[in-house]
Amino acid sequence: MTFPFVLLSTLAGLLLSTLSICAQTLADRLGYPPGTRLIVVHADDLGVTHAVNAATIKGLEAGTINSASLMVPCPWFPEIADYAKSHPDADFGLHLTLTSERVYYRWGPVASRDKVPSVVDENGYFHHDWEQNEHIDAKEVEIELRAQIDRALAMGVHPTHLDSHQYRLIMSGKELFDVILRVAHAYKLPVFVTRDWFADHPYLQSSLGPDDVVVDHTVTIEPEVPPEKWTEFYLAALKNLQPGVTEFVIHPGYDDEELRAATRERSTWGAAWRQRDYDFFTSDQFRQVLAQQNIKLITWRELARATALR
Amino acid sequence: MTFPFVLLSTLAGLLLSTLSICAQTLADRLGYPPGTRLIVVHADDLGVTHAVNAATIKGLEAGTINSASLMVPCPWFPEIADYAKSHPDADFGLHLTLTSERVYYRWGPVASRDKVPSVVDENGYFHHDWEQNEHIDAKEVEIELRAQIDRALAMGVHPTHLDSHQYRLIMSGKELFDVILRVAHAYKLPVFVTRDWFADHPYLQSSLGPDDVVVDHTVTIEPEVPPEKWTEFYLAALKNLQPGVTEFVIHPGYDDEELRAATRERSTWGAAWRQRDYDFFTSDQFRQVLAQQNIKLITWRELARATALR
Repeated sequence: MTFPFVLLSTLAGLLLSTLSICAQTLADRLGYPPGTRLIVVHADDLGVTHAVNAATIKGLEAGTINSASLMVPCPWFPEIADYAKSHPDADFGLHLTLTSERVYYRWGPVASRDKVPSVVDENGYFHHDWEQNEHIDAKEVEIELRAQIDRALAMGVHPTHLDSHQYRLIMSGKELFDVILRVAHAYKLPVFVTRDWFADHPYLQSSLGPDDVVVDHTVTIEPEVPPEKWTEFYLAALKNLQPGVTEFVIHPGYDDEELRAATRERSTWGAAWRQRDYDFFTSDQFRQVLAQQNIKLITWRELARATALR
Repeated sequence: MTFPFVLLSTLAGLLLSTLSICAQTLADRLGYPPGTRLIVVHADDLGVTHAVNAATIKGLEAGTINSASLMVPCPWFPEIADYAKSHPDADFGLHLTLTSERVYYRWGPVASRDKVPSVVDENGYFHHDWEQNEHIDAKEVEIELRAQIDRALAMGVHPTHLDSHQYRLIMSGKELFDVILRVAHAYKLPVFVTRDWFADHPYLQSSLGPDDVVVDHTVTIEPEVPPEKWTEFYLAALKNLQPGVTEFVIHPGYDDEELRAATRERSTWGAAWRQRDYDFFTSDQFRQVLAQQNIKLITWRELARATALR
């Protein structure tokens, strides 16, 4: 009676190999030796203003910023889409956007406005912000996300990943997270999610499947850091970097007339903030720390291969 | 048989008074002595970029630019709407916009996109331009114009007049001119039309009624004028100014990073062009010529009274 034994041993083998895949980190799957520290230096908000486009392009061309995501509904999207077309190797994702958080300079949906009434305010712009009691319709969100991706594709942008402006689609509950995940699967694109968020938002982990890319950690500077501690904050983050993949979510831009005017109602994520991010992530100091600490850069294009390698 | 005679004499009187109203110029109706030379120094395109808003506000506050019109669909409309709310005496009209003529920086309709398909391109922006064979649906144009005016009103702008970006609604035939006229009448606003255009576009004169304001002349600089002849062009126009009301259609702006980037695909109506307009119309030289030549400034708010005075 050898047959049941063979079956049992095959099943046990399958189980072991599945467990071993589950235990494998992103870095393992991509073939990096244990302990390797990898970072995505990811610029958010391309398309929002010219000053953000221009600064990020300079950082990408300097090589120390290596990934970015684009806001399709924003007025300067055509400029960055044009750049993406002529730089097909650039690691550009889409920064899916459902809010228009500024006061003097605003934007609205890509989808036809009357198809997405719950995401627009009384003047037809995206809401400034989502209040606790705001009813955001998940079906309309899906229509708008698909419209943003379709416009990007039509304009020659081939995104390597998706993420969510102000984390609205990550932090607003399971229903909206499932929308971005469903859309990502439909377009075969990874979504930026990190294990760091699982404790506060358990639905993330339960919704994700084995084929989804999950970044180990993320670092982003917060308003609590005073301007004079900017460099210190980032240097500490790099010094304390854990093995695996960490995404640095940064917001480069030039502190010029346009960006100052566009963000003047508050200093958080404003023009001076963005200039500080630009300055640090294009500095020789940053480049030297990467070399000294043997920290490697990795793009979303490479991370997406982890799924293909399974 | 005195009755018919009285009737006849009343009719004759009415006829004479009508003829005299018809013969009255705008300036006559507003009570200016014969021969008075009046100009509206009118800045176009507010809302298009921050550099245009900031330069025009400076010119308005200097007092030598005295009227302007706002592009409601454009990204920086909220900034100028906010200014309009806090400066209710500013002479602001709406620069009704149906094209998105730039390459790297664009905008689309205020109305829901699927209600105005003929005015948008395949990516959902207004067409770059209207080609000869473009079918622009007049009913959709009316929907979009009303949406622009309604958004302006909802955001606290109380326009003194209407005009048409790139003269699209003036120069594209009787059907579209009748739309802007109908909308203007519905909102009780004057539309910028000048007699100078009647010869080339006879439908303008035949569509206009006795209650419509018609400006006598207009002056606007054209690409044929080389940069070094800018001042000379405007000085000659002021020297040769005819009696009556003339609108100077100008395009002030700052030649800065934002405006250079937004207009970089061609120099016409570009950043340097707009800086030259700003420089001339805020110069002491312009102010001195106005005084020397006894040229008076007049706003659209005042012109609108001509109709009320009839």
